[in-house]
Amino acid sequence: MMNGFIAVHCGAGYHGDSLKKEYQRTCYNACRKAAEALSQGGNAVDAVEKAIIELENSPLTNAGYGSNLSWDGLVECDASIMNGQTLHFGACGAVSNVWNPITLAKQLCVKQCESLSLGRVPPCILTGHGAKTWAERMGLQIVEEQKMITSRAFRNFKHCKRKLKRYSVQNDLKFSPLDTVGAMCVDANGVVASGASSGGVSLKHEGRVGQAASFGSGVWAAMSRDGIQPSIAACTSGCGEHLIRTQLAKNSAESLLESSPVIGLDKCLKEKFLQSPFLWDIPERLGGTLALIFNPQTSEGELLWGHTTKTMCVGYMSTQTAKPKCIISYLPPKVDTGRKAVVSGVPFKISLQPVPVLQWEIKTEQNHNGSL
Amino acid sequence: MMNGFIAVHCGAGYHGDSLKKEYQRTCYNACRKAAEALSQGGNAVDAVEKAIIELENSPLTNAGYGSNLSWDGLVECDASIMNGQTLHFGACGAVSNVWNPITLAKQLCVKQCESLSLGRVPPCILTGHGAKTWAERMGLQIVEEQKMITSRAFRNFKHCKRKLKRYSVQNDLKFSPLDTVGAMCVDANGVVASGASSGGVSLKHEGRVGQAASFGSGVWAAMSRDGIQPSIAACTSGCGEHLIRTQLAKNSAESLLESSPVIGLDKCLKEKFLQSPFLWDIPERLGGTLALIFNPQTSEGELLWGHTTKTMCVGYMSTQTAKPKCIISYLPPKVDTGRKAVVSGVPFKISLQPVPVLQWEIKTEQNHNGSL
Repeated sequence: MMNGFIAVHCGAGYHGDSLKKEYQRTCYNACRKAAEALSQGGNAVDAVEKAIIELENSPLTNAGYGSNLSWDGLVECDASIMNGQTLHFGACGAVSNVWNPITLAKQLCVKQCESLSLGRVPPCILTGHGAKTWAERMGLQIVEEQKMITSRAFRNFKHCKRKLKRYSVQNDLKFSPLDTVGAMCVDANGVVASGASSGGVSLKHEGRVGQAASFGSGVWAAMSRDGIQPSIAACTSGCGEHLIRTQLAKNSAESLLESSPVIGLDKCLKEKFLQSPFLWDIPERLGGTLALIFNPQTSEGELLWGHTTKTMCVGYMSTQTAKPKCIISYLPPKVDTGRKAVVSGVPFKISLQPVPVLQWEIKTEQNHNGSL
Repeated sequence: MMNGFIAVHCGAGYHGDSLKKEYQRTCYNACRKAAEALSQGGNAVDAVEKAIIELENSPLTNAGYGSNLSWDGLVECDASIMNGQTLHFGACGAVSNVWNPITLAKQLCVKQCESLSLGRVPPCILTGHGAKTWAERMGLQIVEEQKMITSRAFRNFKHCKRKLKRYSVQNDLKFSPLDTVGAMCVDANGVVASGASSGGVSLKHEGRVGQAASFGSGVWAAMSRDGIQPSIAACTSGCGEHLIRTQLAKNSAESLLESSPVIGLDKCLKEKFLQSPFLWDIPERLGGTLALIFNPQTSEGELLWGHTTKTMCVGYMSTQTAKPKCIISYLPPKVDTGRKAVVSGVPFKISLQPVPVLQWEIKTEQNHNGSL
């Protein structure tokens, strides 16, 4: 049995009391799927994919099946994956017919190792109809657009459209209470990976691409290059446009490299999100991040989460523990959402394989001054 | 007459001898259009748009009309604009029917000041068919897909497809010699803006989105927040996938803040592009950047360009000089492309308006600790 660590979240937002248990169960199942993949020898990228497939397949999450509907009444998904070892990134945006957008993102990420004829470069971001045809060629599961829509999402859509008619200029109604889901893994070789998947905001415009398909904004993963510097990863959730401008995934992952990860993440959410000059005109700054740091020398790590939304539902497990732990993190009562952040975390430990952490060969002829 | 400074480029790549004069003329005309806009009181964003419209309308550049064709034989454009004052970013990706993609990107950028009903957020990135319908609603010029295709682009497409058949697995042929065009402006109020527009790589997959539609990768603009810290901007050109991973626009703009802009940019191209860990598996690292730094206190600035491609065609002018200067920058002979960078630059000076540089009001109720 191979070791590893898994963390997932099913969106920063507001998890109503009635569905709390359901969301926790969804995170629980996602952790189990990833652990299964890891224990069967799957790598971090595979495990992240498996966890997110579980989150996408749940009708409750705003990812894959059951996502928020766009203005035109369709599901349009964004998803991305980053491999901390190769630093490859694959993303798809505004796809309506691919059952598991995360699998498409993973394939795009994996294919970046290949080279095409005539010096062409494999795409890292594919959108819309073109993303679908590429997925088809890869043999991924393509479905009718209607198959992605749950009756709950459709009711919500109708409800919002009606409200919009009645209060067409007012701004006092909020909906789409949940956003992007995500997962991160450390595998037995110490490789980190991170993934995200999102249905985007309710009633969004056709073709809109959010942070889950934008480099540095939805996911981040960077593995130790020298076995000394720790590996880091993050995945974010919240308003896509704001997460793009603040590049919250990259910033929150890198913030953990400061002397104390908790203090680093708290500072990051304050200075680079709540007080970010990029959000000067945004009254309510809604976002969340799940981030981890792992030291391959000690095999110890820390998982952290921070959010400015009312709640964030998080699950995590080590393959060496019996079962996942799933919690709902709350902003303290009386604190307005989008004004302050809450940050918590847990330490973890995994036993790495007795193989060298870095099995990374430089395939190019070029000399590097860097420490590849 | 209002003052300002303009810089444009029509792609890092290889400008063959036969068309050199034509490319220089195109840059010349683009500078003139932007100067016209500025002298009529247009702001930096307007001027950038006008310059890039000129570059898009030229059949020679790989942007707008005359772009490289995709695998399916269509033009699919990416474009983006960033306003250094508001820090808003607007981008469109994989659009086939919008005559001037840069105008669509500009509209998306401008509309981010507006708020939508029900707490919805204006989109910052729109792609494909949805981008087209949005452009239509804004009254932008929509054309038949075929209208974007020049006979030159079609010949090149046929040629590449034939080659591909003959040498289907070989990797020894390079085409699409030019990439993304761009422009930057400083207006009379000291506002900086940057824009980019690209037809992407030849034979790219439908729906592929490159750096010209990715935050931090294609364009960057950040204005002085306090009147003391200088304003910076950059726009990049080269292989989209590599520029996304290295976020070259943001990195090259910020590199100018080091003690000496030339040394900063040279170091950036070396450490964050040529030796970037994100490009460890890329044998040839092709890119270029046009970047500027402007000090509102002294009204002095520096324009710099750097590239690892054979050539880069650059034009610039101050509205206070008679006419634009357009040059072709070369990598030194005997230096292999994609292995070393050349960096050059010129100083510039503009007289700002006698109004305060910062007319920026905080419209939200929130308190900021930052120096907005």
